[in-house]
Formats: sequence, structure tokens, C-alpha cells
Amino acid sequence: MVTISSPALLTDHYELTMLQGALRSGAAHRRSVFEVFTRRLPEGRRYGVVAGTGRLLDEVEAFRFTPEQLAFLERAGVVDRPTLDWLEAYRFRGSISGYREGECYFPGSPILTVEGSFAECVVLETLILSILNHDSAIAAAASRMVAAAGGRPCIEMGSRRAHEQAAVASARAAYLAGFASTSNLEAGFRYGVPTVGTAAHAFTLVHDGEREAFQAQVATLGKGTTLLVDTYDVAEAVRVAVEVAGPDLGAVRLDSGDLLWMAHRVRRQLDELGAVDTKIVVTSDLDEYAIAALAVAPVDAYGVGTQLVTGSGAPTSAMVYKLVARARSAEPDAPLEAVAKHSAGKPSLGGRKYAYRRIEEDAVATEEVVSLRPNPQAGRPLSVPLVVDGEILARPDLSAARALHQESVAELPVSATQLSRGDAVIPTVYKVD
Amino acid sequence: MVTISSPALLTDHYELTMLQGALRSGAAHRRSVFEVFTRRLPEGRRYGVVAGTGRLLDEVEAFRFTPEQLAFLERAGVVDRPTLDWLEAYRFRGSISGYREGECYFPGSPILTVEGSFAECVVLETLILSILNHDSAIAAAASRMVAAAGGRPCIEMGSRRAHEQAAVASARAAYLAGFASTSNLEAGFRYGVPTVGTAAHAFTLVHDGEREAFQAQVATLGKGTTLLVDTYDVAEAVRVAVEVAGPDLGAVRLDSGDLLWMAHRVRRQLDELGAVDTKIVVTSDLDEYAIAALAVAPVDAYGVGTQLVTGSGAPTSAMVYKLVARARSAEPDAPLEAVAKHSAGKPSLGGRKYAYRRIEEDAVATEEVVSLRPNPQAGRPLSVPLVVDGEILARPDLSAARALHQESVAELPVSATQLSRGDAVIPTVYKVD
Repeated sequence: MVTISSPALLTDHYELTMLQGALRSGAAHRRSVFEVFTRRLPEGRRYGVVAGTGRLLDEVEAFRFTPEQLAFLERAGVVDRPTLDWLEAYRFRGSISGYREGECYFPGSPILTVEGSFAECVVLETLILSILNHDSAIAAAASRMVAAAGGRPCIEMGSRRAHEQAAVASARAAYLAGFASTSNLEAGFRYGVPTVGTAAHAFTLVHDGEREAFQAQVATLGKGTTLLVDTYDVAEAVRVAVEVAGPDLGAVRLDSGDLLWMAHRVRRQLDELGAVDTKIVVTSDLDEYAIAALAVAPVDAYGVGTQLVTGSGAPTSAMVYKLVARARSAEPDAPLEAVAKHSAGKPSLGGRKYAYRRIEEDAVATEEVVSLRPNPQAGRPLSVPLVVDGEILARPDLSAARALHQESVAELPVSATQLSRGDAVIPTVYKVD
Repeated sequence: MVTISSPALLTDHYELTMLQGALRSGAAHRRSVFEVFTRRLPEGRRYGVVAGTGRLLDEVEAFRFTPEQLAFLERAGVVDRPTLDWLEAYRFRGSISGYREGECYFPGSPILTVEGSFAECVVLETLILSILNHDSAIAAAASRMVAAAGGRPCIEMGSRRAHEQAAVASARAAYLAGFASTSNLEAGFRYGVPTVGTAAHAFTLVHDGEREAFQAQVATLGKGTTLLVDTYDVAEAVRVAVEVAGPDLGAVRLDSGDLLWMAHRVRRQLDELGAVDTKIVVTSDLDEYAIAALAVAPVDAYGVGTQLVTGSGAPTSAMVYKLVARARSAEPDAPLEAVAKHSAGKPSLGGRKYAYRRIEEDAVATEEVVSLRPNPQAGRPLSVPLVVDGEILARPDLSAARALHQESVAELPVSATQLSRGDAVIPTVYKVD
């Protein structure tokens, strides 16, 4: 049994050795600002989707070091006694602001801003990035699939292709980005995502025949259920399915073969059998391109697995957590100074950023404005306070994030959702004066 | 705080509706055999690596439905009352055998065999596949990186690019496949994987200058530490690093730029400064190809992040969990009958399999023999009992799995570890008579 009492060790070793060094030098107590942003979107993608913020705030709140964890750190010689004492008393008392969950983002968008002492902020780096990089990658892929499906529902069913906990987060992120439901029961239990499912090939195989399996399923789930019709011969299975359930059969599912051709054939057969309202659900390694290709097929819903939970070619986001400003002394009122590294090929702009989406009169976004000062004339403000002095202001709400995502995409130029490869659909404009 | 009291809902909805249907039809009680196998390796890969078995056994043991979980299933209308009652009493009492953790596998290898009633086996499908598909994908990528590194240590540091719990499993899988250590503290705490880490750019930036940062780090971590030298100017940083730590400085780390060129330049500079034993650690989006390209560079260790935790292009494995045999009645001694679906493009061979690796006299593997009967003359037997009648026989040991993996790769033809794309390095031969 996995009992995760605290997320505090979901942390890179070097966060704690940096802490130790900074406690010793005194820099640990300098007021600091860290920013989460990305230098680029995955190749060809036109927008990113912020996801994970809701999970993140819960984890930051739970980020305390337990006696067992501290004993491990001591035993393994990770940090010294003064550092252990500091960790024992740790809880985050700083402030966090950021893009709302579901908001679209672009290269340079200051997705999350974490402010506090260097020490209290640096130890959160790994966990914050793990959550945002994973969940945002899944949400971005899901958002494209939803656009490609053009109003037909998408069902998330990739749990078996992902780490068992990542699967739950993926189901949440997919729902946030517009998926209708998931197969993952834990996502229903933990986050209230609607769950669906009926039967796999094993159910047909464990019975003496397809007819017996269909009879058993209809007897227990009703004729509104979805029967899987490709275990043996599809045409024969569809015939038996309608014979068993009657013309009010809810749906049939196709999980193999040429889905475009097969959907047409099955639709014709269903109609001939009088099952004109019986829907067709297709699954089998779909991605956004396969979904788009099926637009002309008589398909009613898409089940998406592997390609959803692996981010459809982009299984992680490239978000980083960078120190952008810090005080020169540990005095609480010492002024912040911008800082940035100069590493080759990894440029950073120092200083705390404020972000706005410029919206033209036709309600279409034209620019991501990233400014070194508050600049409310620049457009819709993108950052909201999430944590103030260690207190979470409001638990993000998954339904609200889902609604926001729909609005955020609708506001982008229409080319945002085209599937062909391209650049970010709006440019990021920096205001540094 | 995430408290995972039971993994029982890390399960696809349809596993439970199938259960309900089978309880109603009586097929639930038929003795059944499920097999985990893959139809193909990721494109171009020459072998797979079994990983996750150790985690899996713990989770199977913990797979019980809590009152809260049952209340959710009832409230959400997932299953009916008789099914809820059955789930309330559930614990797995069947048997599991499989490839040892660390063993290489090929298309068709029966990686795990789960036997019991249909009901008790089917509900484990999602969790078993989630764990094996994820962990094996990471281990396979790690194994190639270790081979490419040719004896130089590889350090896993990808936590921030993966779901926070997948990151822990990834660190475990990488260690199993030969990585020397990880940055992930939870992997140290939970699995005993050695953890390492020193400092990031933020540590340099929070101090007044690079010299102050290096002084703070050496003061607290000793001169054996690794100093990060690419925050501003590398040559200047190396000069200051040796000035601060002396010629006994443990290592410097390069995290950007042209690592091949830079490693040569830094090695020359270190030698000129008398720091002839100071090592060079390189990081920055390495994969197995980048590692191989650095073979000619004076590099002492590789830190690998994103590409490790995303499986270097193959973030999941394609393992499936298929019913291959079942009794025709619920009688305990009813004989098993082979079953297989005929879905287009997804061929399966029914019947329980036994697997052997044929080894020629020169101790080189030549075939994966998959047989429908026990056939010990065919080679080294690959499957071992893991669970018998619900009792775990032996907790897999991570160090043992690590040693086994090394042996298993050493036994393959040498072309197994070449990086160019190719087919499975040995063929899978089916014996069906």
C-alpha cells in the first residue's frame, strides 16, 4: 500500500543542499521571486494550457517534513543538523500568484510567480514543476483533440498506458481541456470527473460466445449500453447485438481495423436493422489527426488512450522555475533586484513580470504582453493571487477551469486550433521600460 | 495532502461493469488465465526491459476496496449492490508468475501470467498495465543510455519533467537499468536508490556573485562538491571555482552550450590550473545519442533528465493484458480452453504460454521460445512464481533486479545495445504443438 503522508521528498536532492548552503551564507533569508515559464512550446504547437494548479495548491499546503522523512535525510547525510531543524519547522508562508487553471499560455508567459524567502521558495521547485509540466502537457494535447472532434464527445481511456497516479492527473487534465468523461474511477472519486465504461474483449471471450456475452451485458447494464463488436466478425456481431438488445441498443464500439471504412459500414448495417439511434464509438490508438480524419465518418464519440496520456508526442512541458529577483540583504524591506543567468542558449529575462492578453475590438487576442511593471492598459490581466502569506485564497474549481479553458481558446485567433504545425498563435511582447 | 489508502480505484470503469455482467451470467467464477505481453517493441528498439514488478506486487496486495471507495461506486451508479458486496470482500487469491524484474523481453514474451477466477483477475488489469507499461518504458530507455555511456555513471535527474509520483517510479526504473543515482529524494526514501545533487543556477543568482556562491557551497558541502560553472562566463567560473575550492575541487557541472567543445576546453583549463582530478559532469537535455556523441569528450558523468522520464521517444510500453484461457464452467476442476480475439491487426495466440531463452554454447541468446507447453529443453526458463493463492512468495529486491538486468543484457547478441534503429535482437519463436 502506497501511503503518501507528505509530498516533501518529491524534491530534487540539490534543492536541500542549496538550502543548506544558503542557510550558512545567509542568502536563504533574502526575499526572492521565482517564476515558472517556458522558453518554447512543443514543436508545431500554437498554444499551451495551464493545468495542475489545483493539485499544486493542495500539495504546497501539505508540504511538511515528517519525522520519518527527516530521519531519512539525516541517515542518508543529505543535509546537516541546522538544515534539518529548519526543514522540521518548514511550511510555506510566502505568496503565489499565477495564470488561472485552464488559461492558454505562450512562450515567456509568467505562469506562476512564487515569492518569499529564497529558502522557502527554492524547496518547492521540483514539485511545482512536476505537477505543472505533466498536467499542462496532457491538457494541451487534450485541447487539440477536443478541437479536432468538433463537438463530438471525447472519452479519456489511457490509464493503462501511464503511471497509475499520472493516469489520474491525466484524466483530470483532459476533462479540464474539454473531454467529456474518463474511464479512470479514481479521477471520479478524487475530482468528480464523470466516468464511463462497459466491456472489453475479455468479457466476450470469457463467455461461451458473443451472443452469451451480449446477453449478459444487456441483462445487467440495460439496452442503452455500448457493445464491443470487433472480437470476431464485426458484421455478425452487429447483427447479434441488435438481435439481443433490440433497435434501442445504446451504442456499438469499434476498437480495431480501418475505422473510417468500418464506421460507414456499421452505420449502414445499423440503419438497415432499424437501430437508427444506436451510436458508434471508436477507439484504437486515436490522436488528434486520426480524430480529424474521422470527421467525415458517422462516428458519435471518440475514446482516446495512449496518445492522450503521452501528450500526443509532447509528454512533458518545458516549464522552468527561475529566480528572477532577490533582495541583496535579508532585511524584510530590502529592495528586490532583477537577476538572470547568461547560459548559452537558455536566455532569461530578470525581474518580476506582469502579464496581459491584448484583445482587439473583435474580441480576438493579438498579443501576450509581458511587462516588468503593472500595465493594466495592456489587456486582460492574466495573473490572479492564489496564496497570500501561506494561506490559500481559493481552491481552484475544476468546472470553472473547464469553462475558462473554453473561453480562453475561443478568444484566440481561429488558427489556434488548426492541426498543422505552426508557431505560437499570438506573439509574446516584452515591455521592459 | 494526497493520502492513497488503496489503489483499488486506479482502475478503468469497465473492469467493474464487466465484473457485474460476469457475476450475473456466472462467468465471473470461471477459472481464467490472463497474460501480459506486447505485440511490438517501440520503433527501432532491440529489446525491452521488465520493470515495475516489485511495485506491482505491493499494490496487488493492497488492492482492497475501502468503505469510502464503495460509497463512491454506489453513489456514482458504477455497479449494482451484488457487485459492491463482492468488491467489499475482494482480495486477490489467485496466482501470478512472470519474468523477473530486470529481465529483457521481446514481442510475444509472456511477461506476466495471472491466474484465478475471471472476476478476481479482470479487476487488476488497469493497475498491472499502468505499472508495467510505465516502468518498463523508462527502464528500456535507461538501459540504452547506460550502454551508450560505456561505464561512465549516469545520474537520473528528470523529476521535474514527470508527474511527481511517476518521477519516483522513474528513478527506481533507471537505477534498476544501471543508472548510478538519482536526484529524487523520495526514491531514496522509498526504495533506497542513492541520491545526489549540489546546486542550481538559482544558488549562484541569490548570492552577490559567483565567487560568494562558490564560497558558500564549498564551506558547507566541502571541496569535493560539484560547482555549476555556466551561470555567466564558463572560463571565468572555472578559474574562480578552483581558486575558491583549490585543485582538489570534486567536479564542475556544465548545463548548457556545446558540451563536446566545452568539455574539452574546461578539461584543458582545469588541468592547467592543477585540478587534474576534478571531474566534469554534463547535463542539459541529454539522450542516448547525445551521450554516445560525448564518448570522445573528457566527461566523467552524465546527468539525464527529460529524455529519461519520457522514455526517450517511447514514454509508454505497448503491453496488453489478455484473457488467453478460461474454463467453460465455474467448476474448480473444469479444464482450461484457449481463447483469442480475431480483431483486425491485433492478433493474439490463445492458451497459456511458457517462455525460455535459448542460449548457444558461446553463452549468447539466440531465440525467445514461447511454448504452449512446458519445454525446459528449450533454454533458460524465464518465468518464476511470484504469487501463489494470494500469497506473495518473495518481495523482489531492487539490487537483485539491477544485477539481473546487467546479466540479461550481457547475454544478448552484442548488437542489442547498438543505437541505430533495428528489429528485436533475437526472434520470438512460437511452439504451438
